[in-house]
Amino acid sequence: MSKKLTSREEDYSKWYNELVVKANLAENSGVRGCMVIKPYGYAIWEKMQAQLDKMFKETGHENAYFPLFVPKSLFEAEEKNAEGFAKECAVVTHYRLKGDEENKGKLIVDPEAKLEEELVVRPTSEAIIWNTYRNWIESYRDLPILVNQWANVVRWEMRTRLFLRTAEFLWQEGHTAHSTKEEAIQETEQMMNVYATFAEEFMAVPVVKGIKTEAERFAGADETYCIEALMQDGKALQAGTSHFLGQNFAKAFDVKYTTKEGKQEYVWATSWGVSTRLIGALIMMHSDDNGLVLPPKLAPIQLVVVPIYKGVDQLELIREYITPYLEELRAKGVSVKFDDRDTHKPGWKFNEYELKGVPVRVAIGKRDMENGTVELARRDTLTKESIQIADLTATVERLLVEIQENVYNKAFEYRKTHITEVDTFDAFKEVLEGKGGFVSAHWDGTTETEEKIQDLTKATIRCIPLDAKEEEGVCVFTGKPSKKRVLFAKAY
Amino acid sequence: MSKKLTSREEDYSKWYNELVVKANLAENSGVRGCMVIKPYGYAIWEKMQAQLDKMFKETGHENAYFPLFVPKSLFEAEEKNAEGFAKECAVVTHYRLKGDEENKGKLIVDPEAKLEEELVVRPTSEAIIWNTYRNWIESYRDLPILVNQWANVVRWEMRTRLFLRTAEFLWQEGHTAHSTKEEAIQETEQMMNVYATFAEEFMAVPVVKGIKTEAERFAGADETYCIEALMQDGKALQAGTSHFLGQNFAKAFDVKYTTKEGKQEYVWATSWGVSTRLIGALIMMHSDDNGLVLPPKLAPIQLVVVPIYKGVDQLELIREYITPYLEELRAKGVSVKFDDRDTHKPGWKFNEYELKGVPVRVAIGKRDMENGTVELARRDTLTKESIQIADLTATVERLLVEIQENVYNKAFEYRKTHITEVDTFDAFKEVLEGKGGFVSAHWDGTTETEEKIQDLTKATIRCIPLDAKEEEGVCVFTGKPSKKRVLFAKAY
Repeated sequence: MSKKLTSREEDYSKWYNELVVKANLAENSGVRGCMVIKPYGYAIWEKMQAQLDKMFKETGHENAYFPLFVPKSLFEAEEKNAEGFAKECAVVTHYRLKGDEENKGKLIVDPEAKLEEELVVRPTSEAIIWNTYRNWIESYRDLPILVNQWANVVRWEMRTRLFLRTAEFLWQEGHTAHSTKEEAIQETEQMMNVYATFAEEFMAVPVVKGIKTEAERFAGADETYCIEALMQDGKALQAGTSHFLGQNFAKAFDVKYTTKEGKQEYVWATSWGVSTRLIGALIMMHSDDNGLVLPPKLAPIQLVVVPIYKGVDQLELIREYITPYLEELRAKGVSVKFDDRDTHKPGWKFNEYELKGVPVRVAIGKRDMENGTVELARRDTLTKESIQIADLTATVERLLVEIQENVYNKAFEYRKTHITEVDTFDAFKEVLEGKGGFVSAHWDGTTETEEKIQDLTKATIRCIPLDAKEEEGVCVFTGKPSKKRVLFAKAY
Repeated sequence: MSKKLTSREEDYSKWYNELVVKANLAENSGVRGCMVIKPYGYAIWEKMQAQLDKMFKETGHENAYFPLFVPKSLFEAEEKNAEGFAKECAVVTHYRLKGDEENKGKLIVDPEAKLEEELVVRPTSEAIIWNTYRNWIESYRDLPILVNQWANVVRWEMRTRLFLRTAEFLWQEGHTAHSTKEEAIQETEQMMNVYATFAEEFMAVPVVKGIKTEAERFAGADETYCIEALMQDGKALQAGTSHFLGQNFAKAFDVKYTTKEGKQEYVWATSWGVSTRLIGALIMMHSDDNGLVLPPKLAPIQLVVVPIYKGVDQLELIREYITPYLEELRAKGVSVKFDDRDTHKPGWKFNEYELKGVPVRVAIGKRDMENGTVELARRDTLTKESIQIADLTATVERLLVEIQENVYNKAFEYRKTHITEVDTFDAFKEVLEGKGGFVSAHWDGTTETEEKIQDLTKATIRCIPLDAKEEEGVCVFTGKPSKKRVLFAKAY
């Protein structure tokens, strides 16, 4: 398979799909809408998981595991939530297959093994979890419950796209229970902040923190907080959401607690999640026409060494030459690969690691050994330099920090030049049809206007930014008064 | 809820179920046969996962993720495998629910959203994975593929039991592809050995390594290797299996590779897995009538400190007194909890941590501070001693090693006295009806005899031990000649 990618300018969407497949991140499977996450893609997910899990535990959360299936009667208990997810859920109706008598070797669903009650494959776990929490919570002493789950979920999406939108995806979902509204809101905001920190410091993806409009809110939530990122093609991507669920699920599942004063009150809830979609964001954010560009903090391989040699003896000399430095780097926590495969030529390997976004590449040949040097290549800038091997450890350490900063700054610069304030609907459309990005505009606060704008422009309100300042204005579409600008964009 | 457990002697099975629930490990859910793994139980699973994952990576494996669903046509491709799992699989037939017009607020399956092809919720992933491997493998250069997956699977068991047998469970499944039969067999054996090392060194569970008989073999395998443990009630528990799949899946999914010589050959396969069932084995193996006993290497909390105080000032003095030692222990990797909750009394906490199997408990009161001592209690032996606080770090470190060894030795002793060689069927039945355990007996090698023995005694052949020596003998049931003893037992 050719490694050459379609360019972003030529066809951004095609570029993305090719990159995902050619860099061995993921591929479509034999199951409609479901992907196979390949080892290299999964290694990125493992890095993300490890960091997020650490942050969740540092904020007092524990992991647990709840059933994959939600009985229909539980699924429908919280009406808005049920309505939101019923349209796209996988339903288990039978628990057995049997031999097809008319078609030897084939199987059919056994009609005698029909379930009394259908089971929904979880699209999200509020229902099953709140049905469980009812038994865990009696008094204020049992609160808060701060639980997270790493799991797979299924949403029967009609148009799917590797990582960004798949019928099955992996995610984490936090589900917390609190005795007061204030504490639940604080938790919701805290987790949005955890996500923002993760996105910016680890993924090197700058995000806007904000609140969703009613139309874009999670089904069953009183308020949805989100972090929104901007991709290189000017489209926005929702990277994480944190929901204040009020007492909606507590009421639907009758979860009450006894207060210190002996009264019975409904419990307050939050839920929050990020998914393998983040891998899609990571890819889109930084990569170029040569392939993936990974921020060092999430790169499965941070440094790769490609020996340029003739014959096994020379290979062993190179190995000897570099090994002490690699051990030093490994001891400092740098993940290092020495690629001694004899099945591929150095040039092939260079392309391979460029495609796979390895942040730093070292090449060593005979001349380097004579001179006491190595050739160092940076993936983000595609620059090369020759350095003394004695400086290798310090240089690589410095570079990993620099690259992490550089990819963030580049993304930040892009976003800065792609948030445009507009005050007329013509200007609004012009930006969207032109450079794209976030359009900051006044809006009259109604779902009706939001929908009309979407029909006309395909742009949705990504969020009401938390840092939006009070400002007298008029809705860009209806001219009605407005006090805050919101961010519109076309979105993934 | 009372913390007092039913004793093992009174009712072993009830003791187990109570222990699992009262120690907050897991509970039944609102979904038939599916459990909720509670935070404390899940923390044990996380410790197991971390260690196993490390061992898999050290043996060259990478993680990946494959779809939850297997289309029926793929599921049925490998006939024996399909036959083995068809009887107990959850089947998705629809992808949407809709409002029930006759019953406001209720949902029904939308008959218009029937899938063209039913999807089986994976009971194991050979089918979906080998359908994928077909595209990954062209030549010998693409081999071996050494992939593992951490996932949930569903098997519609009729009689379930927390951790030991549940409709949904968590596991890892390794799926490897090789160019030669020898390499595949070597991999199968290697992974059985990895499992045995994990069971013995981390779970402190001694295991017998062996091969399954044809009747007990994995559906679709040419050979199943296993590790078998013996629980305190004399019943055996299969703790892990590693399958040599021959070319069965390669043939079913047409997966061929080009050899160095340019020939087309079918690929050789293995698969291997352990599951949350291991938590059940861990609990059953070491625990007593007071609750859980955890080997330190898998204990989520290794040391708990219970302060005995009156008023906040005294609590703070105790905290000051102990903190430097706890920091020292944490720096050495010991997981430590200082339980400063004022909602529960020390006596209550002692019982709680005994029930939860925390290996070492420290209690500190006013008198201890005056004397420069702490009171140390060991969970496995239920012994206490007063030691100088200056010796705390060294003592705890030593104790954690000692406890790990002690629980293993105790389990090993038990098993040693519960492997009984018998040469008559009367003796065979007597052992099974008496002390139980493994019965080592000659068997004529036929499935017929195996089944008859099972009908009469409920005992199955757990394995043909790898270290069984050649020995002339006659089948304990039919009197036909036999060259090896096999291990029978009643099993979980």
